[in-house]
Formats: sequence, C-alpha cells, structure tokens
Amino acid sequence: MLVIGERINATRRRIARAMADRDADLVAREARVQAEAGADFIDVNAGSDPTREADNLKWAVEVLQRSTDLPLCLDSSNPDVLRQGLELIDGGVVMLNSVTAEEDKLAQVLPLAAESGALLVALAMDDRGLPDSAERRVEITAKLVDAAGQAGITSDRLYVDPCIQPISTGGEHGTAVVSAVFRIMRAFEGVHTTCGLSNISFGLPNRNLINRIYVACLIMAGLDSAICDPTAEGLMDSVRAAEALAGRDEFCMNYIRAMRDAGR
Amino acid sequence: MLVIGERINATRRRIARAMADRDADLVAREARVQAEAGADFIDVNAGSDPTREADNLKWAVEVLQRSTDLPLCLDSSNPDVLRQGLELIDGGVVMLNSVTAEEDKLAQVLPLAAESGALLVALAMDDRGLPDSAERRVEITAKLVDAAGQAGITSDRLYVDPCIQPISTGGEHGTAVVSAVFRIMRAFEGVHTTCGLSNISFGLPNRNLINRIYVACLIMAGLDSAICDPTAEGLMDSVRAAEALAGRDEFCMNYIRAMRDAGR
Repeated sequence: MLVIGERINATRRRIARAMADRDADLVAREARVQAEAGADFIDVNAGSDPTREADNLKWAVEVLQRSTDLPLCLDSSNPDVLRQGLELIDGGVVMLNSVTAEEDKLAQVLPLAAESGALLVALAMDDRGLPDSAERRVEITAKLVDAAGQAGITSDRLYVDPCIQPISTGGEHGTAVVSAVFRIMRAFEGVHTTCGLSNISFGLPNRNLINRIYVACLIMAGLDSAICDPTAEGLMDSVRAAEALAGRDEFCMNYIRAMRDAGR
Repeated sequence: MLVIGERINATRRRIARAMADRDADLVAREARVQAEAGADFIDVNAGSDPTREADNLKWAVEVLQRSTDLPLCLDSSNPDVLRQGLELIDGGVVMLNSVTAEEDKLAQVLPLAAESGALLVALAMDDRGLPDSAERRVEITAKLVDAAGQAGITSDRLYVDPCIQPISTGGEHGTAVVSAVFRIMRAFEGVHTTCGLSNISFGLPNRNLINRIYVACLIMAGLDSAICDPTAEGLMDSVRAAEALAGRDEFCMNYIRAMRDAGR
C-alpha cells in the first residue's frame, strides 16, 4: 500500500499561512509527522493563491528536499506549476498529481511525466465531467491507459483515481468507487489505483470513522494507494488490518509488527 | 443489518459457570447489555457439557424469555437440543443456529425449522467438510437453498454462513468469504448471509480491530447479518459506517443519529 500524505496542502489555512510566511519549520514538521506515521510520499499542494502558486510550490519543494528523505508528489491542477516544480527535483522518484482524461490536460501533462519518468496520478474524469457510475470510471480509465501508453508511460507508472464523491450527496457513491477499483485492478494489468480518501465523508460527523472504514473496503477491492492523512487516528491501523484481511500481508507479519510496536 | 449477539455462549467460562450455577441475573444482564448495544437477536449456546446441554439451554431460554424482549437464536450442533429449546418458545420469531449441508443434519434440522416457522442459520459446509474456496461456498449454498425449499422453507428465512476461517492460517481466507458473500447475495434471491465474525481474527493480536474492519468489508460485499459481540469497542460504529458507505442507510440518517447519540 502506497500512502501519499496529504497534509501539506494550501487549502488548509495553517499551510497557506506557512507558505506565505516562508515558515520552513512548519512545513518540514508536517513532512516528518507523516513520515513517522507511515507515509511513502509527501504530497505538496500550493494552490490557495493562483498568482503565487508556482513560487510557493517551488519554495516548498526546496524546503522538503532538504528536510525529508521521502519522495514528493507535486500536486496542482495547473500543468505549468507541475513543470516548474519538476525542474527543481534533484533526481530520484517523483509523482505528479494529476492528469485527467480531458484533452487539454492529457496534451500538457503526459509529456511532463514521460520526459521526467515521474509516476502519475490520473483522475477518472474527462471533458464530460465527473463520472456517474463504475462503468464510466472503467471507460475513462481505458482512455487514460491508452493515452499514457501512446506517450510512452507504462501502466505501472499510473495511479488511477476513480474520483470519490461524498456519500452525503448520494447513497451510491460509496459502492460505485469500490466496484470501479475492483474492475480497474482486474481489467488493466499493472495499473495502480489511488483516491482522495476524505472526499467520501464530506458533510458527515466523525469523518475519520467513515474514512478509515472506507479505505479498508477499498483495499479489500484491490486499492493499492491512497492520498490521505496517515496521522489521523486509527487510519494506518485500518490500512494494516485491511491488508492482512485482503491476503496482502504474508503471515500477517506487518500487522503483527505494527500492533507490537504500538503496544496493542 | 441483523445483529445476533453471541455473548451467551457456554464456551465462555463465565457463561458455563453461570449456567451450572443457575445464575439468572448474569444471563439476563448479558442479554441486556447486548440489546443496549444494538443486538437484534440473542444467541444462546449451552454446549460446554454434552450431558447437560439440553437442560442448560432450556433453563437459559426460560430466563431469557422473562428478561429480554429480543427474539432468541437457539444455538447447538445437536438437533435434539434445538428441538427441546424450540418447545419452550412461547410464540413470535425464533432462529435456529444451525443446519449444515451434511445429509444427516439436513434431515434432522430442516423439519424443525419448517414446522416451527423459525429462521435458520445454514453453514456452507457439507459431508466433504469445510469449504476451501468461494466457489465451493456458492455450490454448497445452492444445495442448502434447494434442500430448504423442498422442506418448505423459503429463501428469505435462510441465513447462509459461509464459514469464516482465520487469516492467521491462510492469507486467502479473508477474500474467499468476501467473494462468497458477494456472489451468494446476487445468485440467490432473498437469501441472507451471516457469519461467525470473530473466527477471522483467531491467533492474532488486537482481534477486535480485525473483526471491526472485516465486518465492514463484508457489509460492503452484501452481508446483511452477523453473529458477533455488539458490545465490542467500535464494532457497532463500524457496522453503521459500513451501512452508510454501502448505500444501505438513506441520507446516512442512522449513522448521523448513532454519532449524535454517542456524542461523536
């Protein structure tokens, strides 16, 4: 399970302020707590102020490359911001978040990933907008895999995000993405799936309970990555338990070790 | 979700002692705490001492009929014990736990359920033993549904238990039952599924974490009943969250109410 820590995101007020104030200590600390909790990648999103997004992202990338050993996931809906961030990456693994199946996004982001060798989060939405069923998510994934392949990006570098929508706005939104993950992981060899986990619980009380139950259901369906907050109470416990239950933890050793280390 | 509270089971030492000592207060209290936690049925199993099982079960049934409004689930592998328990039930809904697809069990237990109108837990095992795959579980379910139908028991009275085996003894045991539940709920109209939940975590640390994550995965696959301990920490929260995520809680109202009542 590849955990992409989501906490360094300028839509959070503390992070926007830290970026504006160039508070490197706070940003470095956010990377460290996520690393300690089990993150594999650190997502960095500077998108609160379009006029300063590129500058803020570049500053944060430089801070993070000095302060964490974890690879970064550059997160912007603006391909030019992704490009500027990529130019600062000094070698090693990097992830871009994200491309969609919209024609202009494919045309702009796929070359960046192809040239840099980056891993790529690919949202299952296209010029028709957000998908409204598991079937549509599978269809759009086919388009993403095909376009990426034509650009020279192999399937194993793609992390398809089936676009979770909140269950508070539709009772079918939870099962649609579980079903989409199940089908995508079987239909497209080598492709990974990820998700912006906390979208599922928007508008509900005790969101963390919904998030940690849902990530387990998704892992059982085949999900092998998530964009989430690994410091949220119980979340990584859920991930470890679900991996053992899904048969993805030989002899349950990771689960047993995690429980022992936590004294549970 | 139909929750069958499992705590009154003589394989627990406290319960065996309470039955031996005719400690009605303890048995009544175990029913009450399960009812308060959200149980829909109270399972009663007196199977610690074969020579006294029928007497102990009958005593417990009489205690429970005086002390709880919830219907009972009479639990014995001995059809004659089930018959003696049934004779004491003073009307209303009752459940028998269990029949299997073994020829002698079908012959002895199906008539009891047919005559009494009882609901029936049916284990997906037969004369060849425990099932070793999702496919076998579906095959045995077909046999159970067929035999029950011939005895006059409609599908909606059947609670098929696909026989959970511990993930500590095989990495495939978790996914096999999730897959079996998914298939059974689609292949056999009206049939319910249940399970002895805690079997999944045998031999592991922090069993309750595994149990509450697994029940959610099973609910997402279609499970609509479980034999479990509703008083276990977080278990009913998991059930409520999973039902909302599975689209089985209109407008998430049960979930929202449960969180509000619990102050979370």
